[in-house]
Amino acid sequence: MAARRGAKDGGGPVKVGILGKGTVGGAFRKLLNERADMVEEVAGRRPRVSGVLSRKKGDFDRILAGSDVIVELMGGVDPARDYVTRALLEGRHVVTANKQLVAQHGPELVAAAKKGGAQLRFEAAVAGAIPVIRVVQESLGAVPIDKVTGIVNGTTNYILTEMARGGLSYDEALAQAQDLGYAEADPTDDVGGADAAAKMAILARLAFGAPVRLNQVPYEGIEQIQPDDLAYAKELGLSLKLLGVAEKSHGEVSVRVFPCFLYPGHPLAPIEGAFNAVMVEAPVITEITMSGPGAGGPQTASAVLGDLVSIVNGGSPLFEETSRLRIAKRHESAFYMHLEVEDRPGVLATITEILGKNEVSVRSVVQRGQGGDAQLIMVMHRGDERRFKAALVRIAKLKALRAKPRAIRVIEEEFT
Amino acid sequence: MAARRGAKDGGGPVKVGILGKGTVGGAFRKLLNERADMVEEVAGRRPRVSGVLSRKKGDFDRILAGSDVIVELMGGVDPARDYVTRALLEGRHVVTANKQLVAQHGPELVAAAKKGGAQLRFEAAVAGAIPVIRVVQESLGAVPIDKVTGIVNGTTNYILTEMARGGLSYDEALAQAQDLGYAEADPTDDVGGADAAAKMAILARLAFGAPVRLNQVPYEGIEQIQPDDLAYAKELGLSLKLLGVAEKSHGEVSVRVFPCFLYPGHPLAPIEGAFNAVMVEAPVITEITMSGPGAGGPQTASAVLGDLVSIVNGGSPLFEETSRLRIAKRHESAFYMHLEVEDRPGVLATITEILGKNEVSVRSVVQRGQGGDAQLIMVMHRGDERRFKAALVRIAKLKALRAKPRAIRVIEEEFT
Repeated sequence: MAARRGAKDGGGPVKVGILGKGTVGGAFRKLLNERADMVEEVAGRRPRVSGVLSRKKGDFDRILAGSDVIVELMGGVDPARDYVTRALLEGRHVVTANKQLVAQHGPELVAAAKKGGAQLRFEAAVAGAIPVIRVVQESLGAVPIDKVTGIVNGTTNYILTEMARGGLSYDEALAQAQDLGYAEADPTDDVGGADAAAKMAILARLAFGAPVRLNQVPYEGIEQIQPDDLAYAKELGLSLKLLGVAEKSHGEVSVRVFPCFLYPGHPLAPIEGAFNAVMVEAPVITEITMSGPGAGGPQTASAVLGDLVSIVNGGSPLFEETSRLRIAKRHESAFYMHLEVEDRPGVLATITEILGKNEVSVRSVVQRGQGGDAQLIMVMHRGDERRFKAALVRIAKLKALRAKPRAIRVIEEEFT
Repeated sequence: MAARRGAKDGGGPVKVGILGKGTVGGAFRKLLNERADMVEEVAGRRPRVSGVLSRKKGDFDRILAGSDVIVELMGGVDPARDYVTRALLEGRHVVTANKQLVAQHGPELVAAAKKGGAQLRFEAAVAGAIPVIRVVQESLGAVPIDKVTGIVNGTTNYILTEMARGGLSYDEALAQAQDLGYAEADPTDDVGGADAAAKMAILARLAFGAPVRLNQVPYEGIEQIQPDDLAYAKELGLSLKLLGVAEKSHGEVSVRVFPCFLYPGHPLAPIEGAFNAVMVEAPVITEITMSGPGAGGPQTASAVLGDLVSIVNGGSPLFEETSRLRIAKRHESAFYMHLEVEDRPGVLATITEILGKNEVSVRSVVQRGQGGDAQLIMVMHRGDERRFKAALVRIAKLKALRAKPRAIRVIEEEFT
């Protein structure tokens, strides 16, 4: 089948055209140079850089004409989308690390790859060097997956870890992450959850074979998290993560990103610092968890190189979205709720009455402080999110509240 | 290239001959039947079972003649070795879950595959559904790997977890594992470390491209572990695992299996019960850890199915042992040592003098109990194993000892 031939078919060196001269582009050129022998040993053909395109220098058409494989590391949707599409249509295999491109235009790129008889690989777009794409697409390619849960943004995991460990405020932890290069000067995409949403959209498509559009992935960030929340959680043994959750149930798909408490024993609970981790649940295999460093120049370059080797070896998996799954509109979650209240009789009764009327079941209540400093820390059982949110709206209006209530989801499933 | 063509080339259904009708064979047939649609969707061709060989029924030659792919799930070296070799030489792709076969005869099977122009895949031979072979061979195929550390035997991890959690003796925990089907009636291969050694030999070959023979992998089991050791370790926050460690340094390779204490923060420390986990360390990517359920019928079947899909997609990685690495003769480790001693002046001085003369550096000493019940729990710093063992031999001869000393390795590297 022409559509699945490998770059091996040509014989001689594999000519690699690189788009992008930034951190990742540089790290990839360095790694490719260092590992050319090993690529030849493993894949049977030696890679040779046929051209490098930067924003200022290089001619894409000439690079395309002289390459077997295009490695797209320029980032951003335009002009990457045009370049990748043209390369695929002309039968050049493509490796890309561009999550926005794949999340927004994956299906059309796949169509171009089929039309051109080329392979498209994008391991580096999700979770750095952790081979989650390969595992979902190949190892578990024929196994029905129920759920994918991921810590897919290293910046936010670093910030939350530092807040929990050192009692830092969100702003302090963010500043520290920026100092260390874990967060960009404008961290909005990371801390707001948009970056994780793009990655989860890609994973959900692969895991469920369903067309999940980026605007169907609601996301929340970590900007509102208070050190208080982490301190209480610590006492309960809980850890807080920014999770991406993609799940399939009752013919519906739900893909969301939100901060969430995990009980100890959850496979993602021990993941700290700038690490990423992804857990894949499937009835056949129970679950598989993979963890490692999140994106970084060398890690991303290593994932790109793995894709290049696979392309030379020939044969990429199909990536079709044949499932007719609807996007879920209803969700169930357990919640943690933090209330600053006036310490007087009847307040707790009023609150529990509101919860009860909305069919929200309370798992635990703890009061901290007294008088003007009283706080209620409540944990709910799992239930309909809309009911909990309706209750929260009513609670927020109570005169007895001294501040806006805070609510954070909790995953209460047991894993050990 | 003929040698790398996929089973896709033929068109029509993929004819799959299955060798073995045991637990895994049954689970695979069931899964293949259930997932035939999905395999067709992902790989473009529908699988069809062309024949099943059991110990009593079926004719291998006829099955071979009618199959594109042979799936070997019979276990044991003979006659599996003959069947697999013949299949490969005749150009039939092979998927096997047989760790002993691959560990003992991997290189000759790879040679047969090359000669016959066939693919050989064996993901299910190591760590059940965790795709560690694929990751080491493909994702990290061109990245130099330093070290692979694995909990690759679920039986022993279950037993150690139960001993630590419930204070069970080794015999009690083993009996419980047998009741639950986690341990076989004759558990020797599992608890003695031989099973883990075979898996580590396979991983080491793939990771380092070096010919590691099974008899070059020394192994120790968990039969001598006492509940005491686990209780002390728990107080120190340590957890005990049966580890396989394959490492490359100074042009030498070392592959060993031994029980070992881990500090909290080590990525393998939280792995409990019958789970497996493998950590791969490479300078480029820091480390990747993968965990999931160890071998079991459905898990193994799922790994076999992933391999089948990859074979249909075409293109397996090369598996050549070109490195000229020697097997290391010297090793460095930190040790925990447990001594039952007479509680009188001078005993500790004598012991520390012996350690000092052998250049073993002591990290901590705790005495428990008094009089006839006195025990010394000592933890050493990392150092030459032969020196520590020389000291241990001398200490064992001391009159002040009331029982044989016990020593267990400790990994003291920090991971967080």
